[in-house]
Amino acid sequence: MLPEVEQRLFIAQQLAAVSGEILIQYFRRSHLQGGTKIDQVSAIVTQADEEAEQAMVDLIQAQFPQDGVIREEGKNIAGKSGYTWVLDPIDGTSSFVRGLPIFATLIGLVDADMRPVLGIAHQPISGDRWQGVQGEQSNVNGIPLVNPYKASEINLTAACIVSTTPLMFTTPVQQQKMADIYRQCQRTAFGGDCFNYLSAASGWTAMPLVIVEADLNFYDFCALIPILTGANYCFTDWQGKELTPESTEVVASPNPKLHSEILAFLQ
Amino acid sequence: MLPEVEQRLFIAQQLAAVSGEILIQYFRRSHLQGGTKIDQVSAIVTQADEEAEQAMVDLIQAQFPQDGVIREEGKNIAGKSGYTWVLDPIDGTSSFVRGLPIFATLIGLVDADMRPVLGIAHQPISGDRWQGVQGEQSNVNGIPLVNPYKASEINLTAACIVSTTPLMFTTPVQQQKMADIYRQCQRTAFGGDCFNYLSAASGWTAMPLVIVEADLNFYDFCALIPILTGANYCFTDWQGKELTPESTEVVASPNPKLHSEILAFLQ
Repeated sequence: MLPEVEQRLFIAQQLAAVSGEILIQYFRRSHLQGGTKIDQVSAIVTQADEEAEQAMVDLIQAQFPQDGVIREEGKNIAGKSGYTWVLDPIDGTSSFVRGLPIFATLIGLVDADMRPVLGIAHQPISGDRWQGVQGEQSNVNGIPLVNPYKASEINLTAACIVSTTPLMFTTPVQQQKMADIYRQCQRTAFGGDCFNYLSAASGWTAMPLVIVEADLNFYDFCALIPILTGANYCFTDWQGKELTPESTEVVASPNPKLHSEILAFLQ
Repeated sequence: MLPEVEQRLFIAQQLAAVSGEILIQYFRRSHLQGGTKIDQVSAIVTQADEEAEQAMVDLIQAQFPQDGVIREEGKNIAGKSGYTWVLDPIDGTSSFVRGLPIFATLIGLVDADMRPVLGIAHQPISGDRWQGVQGEQSNVNGIPLVNPYKASEINLTAACIVSTTPLMFTTPVQQQKMADIYRQCQRTAFGGDCFNYLSAASGWTAMPLVIVEADLNFYDFCALIPILTGANYCFTDWQGKELTPESTEVVASPNPKLHSEILAFLQ
C-alpha cells in the first residue's frame, strides 16, 4: 500500500465511526411527532445525511486540507494533493426511511486519475465494516472476504438478479433488457442498495447474486469498487468496461463466466 | 384474552424461538461450497424453511394435537379444536438469500371463523419479536407499539409507497393502479417483505409508509393482522374490506385518512 493511502486509511476508519455515530442518533426516529409540517417529510433523513457528511468533510479538511471531496449532499471541493474523497453518508435512503438496518456509509478515495484506491462501507447498526484497498484482498471486520461462487460453473438460469428498484431502469431499452433477464434467471430481488454488493462480496448469499443497476452516481459505487474487486467479484459497466466517475449503469457478478453471460443481455 | 388463546400464546413464543434457532444456523451460509449441483440452487433456503416449519409443527402437535395447521412448505393439517395455526417459517426469502437480516418467522393463530386472534413475528438475527393479540395493544419485545402518524394530517403526496417487488402486480389493471400511485406519492421503496409492516407498526419510519401488495397467501399476512390492528394501523384488502384467508391484495396505512386516499386508487 502506498504511504499516502495508508495514512488516509486511518482517517477513513475515523470517518466511518463519526458518520455512524450520527446516523445511529437519527435511525428509527420518527420526525413527525411534535407537529412537523408536511413539507418536512423525510426531513429527518436529509438532516442525518447532511450532518454525517459535514462531520466527515470537517475531519478530512482538518487532516488533509489539500484533498478534494465529491459528495452526495453538499458542494464538491476541488483538491490539490491528487487525492479525492467520494462520500455517501447514507447509501440506502429507502432502507433508512423504513427503519431497515441495511443502509451504509460509503467512503471512497480516488487518485489523480480518478481510480479508486480505497473503499470503506460501514453499517452502524450492526457495526459491520467492509474495507477494500486497490491490489489487496478485501475484508469485513478484518475477516478476509470469501467468494464461494468464484469458480462456480453455475449459469444465469440459477442466479438471483438484484436491483434496488426497477424504477432505476428509466429507458425502454433498459427495461427491455431487464425483462429479458428476468425471463432467464432463477429469482429476482429488489431493495438492499449497497448492502447487496457487500453481502455478495462477503459470500453471505444462499445463491449466486448478479446485481444490475442503472441511474447511479459515482458516490453510489466508488467505494464498492476496491471492496468488490478485492473479493474476486467482477464489477463493470454494462459494456464490460471499467467503471469511471461518468458511469451510471453497473453490473456485478461472482465470476467471469456469469459476468459474460449477463453482459450478453446488457450490451 | 381468552384462556385458550393465552395458553397458545405461550406456545407461540416457543415456536418463534425454535424456528429462530434453526434459521440462524442457515443464515449467510453459502451452500455451493463442496460442489453442490446447479439444480440445488437455493437448496439452503428450502432446507431452512422446511426444517424450521417441521420443528414448529412438531411442537404444536405435541402440545395441541387437536389444532389445525396452514403452512407455507408442507401439507395443511385439519384440526378439531377450533384453532388453526398459520405458519411462514421465512417471510422474506428474497432477503434471506441475500444475507439481509430483515426476514422473519410469522406465526398466526385463527379461530373457528378463521379470524386472527394472535400473531407473532420473530426476527432471529436481531432477536426482535412482535406480538399482537386481538383486541389488545401490540408490542415489540414487550414495548407497546407507537404509531406516530396515527392522527397525522399528512396525505399521499408526502408518503412512501412500499411493496416487496413490483413483479407481484401481475395484471395490467394492478400495474396501472400502481403507476397512478407512483405519480402521486413522495417516494417508493421495494424489498423488505414483512419487515416493512413491522417497522411501520413500530413507528420506526422516518416518513409515513403505505404498504401495497398483491399476489400474497394467507400465511404472508395472517400473523400481521393482530399486530397491525393492535398498533392502530389500517390493514385491509384493496376494496377496504377485512382480510380473509382468500385475500391476495392487501394495503396498510397509518391512519384512516391516508387509507381512504390510497383506497381511492386501488378500488
